[in-house]
Amino acid sequence: MDKINFSDQYFMKLALKEAQNALKKDEIPVGAVIVSQNKVIAKAHNLTETLNDVTAHAELLAITSASETLGGKYLRNCTLYVTLEPCAMCAGALAWSQIGRIVYGASDEKRGFTKHSPSLLHPKTEVTEGILNDECRIIVKDFFKMKR
Amino acid sequence: MDKINFSDQYFMKLALKEAQNALKKDEIPVGAVIVSQNKVIAKAHNLTETLNDVTAHAELLAITSASETLGGKYLRNCTLYVTLEPCAMCAGALAWSQIGRIVYGASDEKRGFTKHSPSLLHPKTEVTEGILNDECRIIVKDFFKMKR
Repeated sequence: MDKINFSDQYFMKLALKEAQNALKKDEIPVGAVIVSQNKVIAKAHNLTETLNDVTAHAELLAITSASETLGGKYLRNCTLYVTLEPCAMCAGALAWSQIGRIVYGASDEKRGFTKHSPSLLHPKTEVTEGILNDECRIIVKDFFKMKR
Repeated sequence: MDKINFSDQYFMKLALKEAQNALKKDEIPVGAVIVSQNKVIAKAHNLTETLNDVTAHAELLAITSASETLGGKYLRNCTLYVTLEPCAMCAGALAWSQIGRIVYGASDEKRGFTKHSPSLLHPKTEVTEGILNDECRIIVKDFFKMKR
């Protein structure tokens, strides 16, 4: 059996699978996974329509799930992979969690957290953007095109 | 029977009761209620320690509960009363909900949403601050004094 290459691309593909799960439910296709020591400890996708709840973004659901798995509310040694740049709400939650690293695919020009200052994140959180950017962007773009 | 005066003070007192419920659980004492047409449709208090979940702020729990009550995710004709100025996470959630009005008691100099720009709120959301400011501030101040 081939060894798995635990790269950012590998985990972003899992986040994209979650985005596809959202798409199947007619939700805006955004997916997230949280990884600790190369192990996926939470995965989630956007469920705002299904749950009738604006707080049910992939990232918030993943944070709650990861905290449940770890038995603690801090995610300092974890990495969040999310297909779309987090919004202010999700960035604020990630700050409270003190998450170690955030990796996102596509930028969100309208609602992305990087539009705000001072930074919404915890000062120790590292950020990497643009992993599988095209796939992450196109799945959302096609969704809105279909809706028009 | 005396008629109830449905003032901002009246509803903030209910939010303060929620903050006291948080205090009883050794949680940072912040409480919130959401009101629609003078009717309380949701009440909640901070449960981050109890639930081991950074997302369990009073405001987020109240938004989820109000959406459940209304059967819809938008809170356009609602007012949130919260004892402490919302953080960025909660302000971001309130923006998504398009809530009509936010009333808060004490300012949060460190973590309050008003420290960030551009505004984290929906452009149509009205904000009133300083209602029962002293009571709302002292309950949190005393909690941290006790913790030291």
